[in-house]
Order: sequence, then structure tokens, then C-alpha cells
Amino acid sequence: MPIRHTVVFRLVHPAGSAAEREFLADAEAALTSIPGVEEFGISRQVSPKSDLAYQFAMTFADQRAYQAYNDHPAHVSFVADRWVPEVAAFQEYDFTEV
Amino acid sequence: MPIRHTVVFRLVHPAGSAAEREFLADAEAALTSIPGVEEFGISRQVSPKSDLAYQFAMTFADQRAYQAYNDHPAHVSFVADRWVPEVAAFQEYDFTEV
Repeated sequence: MPIRHTVVFRLVHPAGSAAEREFLADAEAALTSIPGVEEFGISRQVSPKSDLAYQFAMTFADQRAYQAYNDHPAHVSFVADRWVPEVAAFQEYDFTEV
Repeated sequence: MPIRHTVVFRLVHPAGSAAEREFLADAEAALTSIPGVEEFGISRQVSPKSDLAYQFAMTFADQRAYQAYNDHPAHVSFVADRWVPEVAAFQEYDFTEV
């Protein structure tokens, strides 16, 4: 069953900064290079009921493809080198058909 | 600019219960009857990193359509009569293009 993997987050960088733009562009390049990542999208989160500012979303064909992504060296290094130091807060959600 | 309005939530009802099924069906019927609601969807939230269990998502053409939905009597009564008593926890997010 396909899984829509999402994470809503905010960065340590100021809104509108070059560092923010670079993070978003570098994340897209790094994550879409990983096999199994489909329909990658970046959205702005605009509800005042959350203080998170962006969402990454991607679809995996099944749990096996999702696990392979999680374990992929490009994902592991992205998390360690960029996500941990540059993300101030986040929440993951994964969606499937009911 | 289109807005993807989402809410992730869990119910007071047990998973797999008739009350859960009725809530989801009644919510879809009530909310999709409101003008401006497009691409309504119900998903199951399966990440163990969140204790929320479902997501409703819908698209509005613009902020004006979103506001009209919020103010619509069918929305107001759904929130008061079903959402408040039957939803144990929730988080809203609204997404737009970056």
C-alpha cells in the first residue's frame, strides 16, 4: 500500500533568508536522489494554529521502499549533516488509505 | 492561491468501532456538502511518531472560500455537535505553494 510520508518543520534560519532557501533546495536535491522517493513536494505551512513553517512530502510504493529510504546513506547523512543542525522543530506523519 | 486545509486527529471512540466508522462517514457527508470544499480526503495516520490516527484534507480555491467554509452553519454545527465531543486530540495545518 502506498505511504505518503510527511514532515512539518521550522528552521533555525530567519524567514526569507538565503540559508533558508539553500536548505530547501539542498534537501530537495538530496532526498529526490534517493531511490523510491516519488512525488516529492515542498509546501509552506500557513495556519496560525501551528508554528511550523514548511512541509516536505513524498510517496513510497510500500513499506519496503520507505525502509530502504530511511536506511539509505544519502538519507542518513542528510539527517546528520543538515536536518539536525538546521531544523528547530518538526513533526512527522505518514498517511495511507483508510 | 489554493489552500490545502488539513487536520490530523484521533477520536474518543475505539479503533475499529461502529462509532468511529459513523464519525468518519458523517463528517465526510457534512463537510463535502459545504460550498467551496474540493478534493476532500480521509487518510489513516500510521507513523508511530504521532499518536493521531486520521487526517481530513480539503482544498479551497482561495482564502475567501476557506473563510466562507469556516463560517458556514453546516461547519459550525458539525464542530459543535460532533467534533468537540468525539475528537480527543487534533492538530491543524494549512498548506500552500512555496
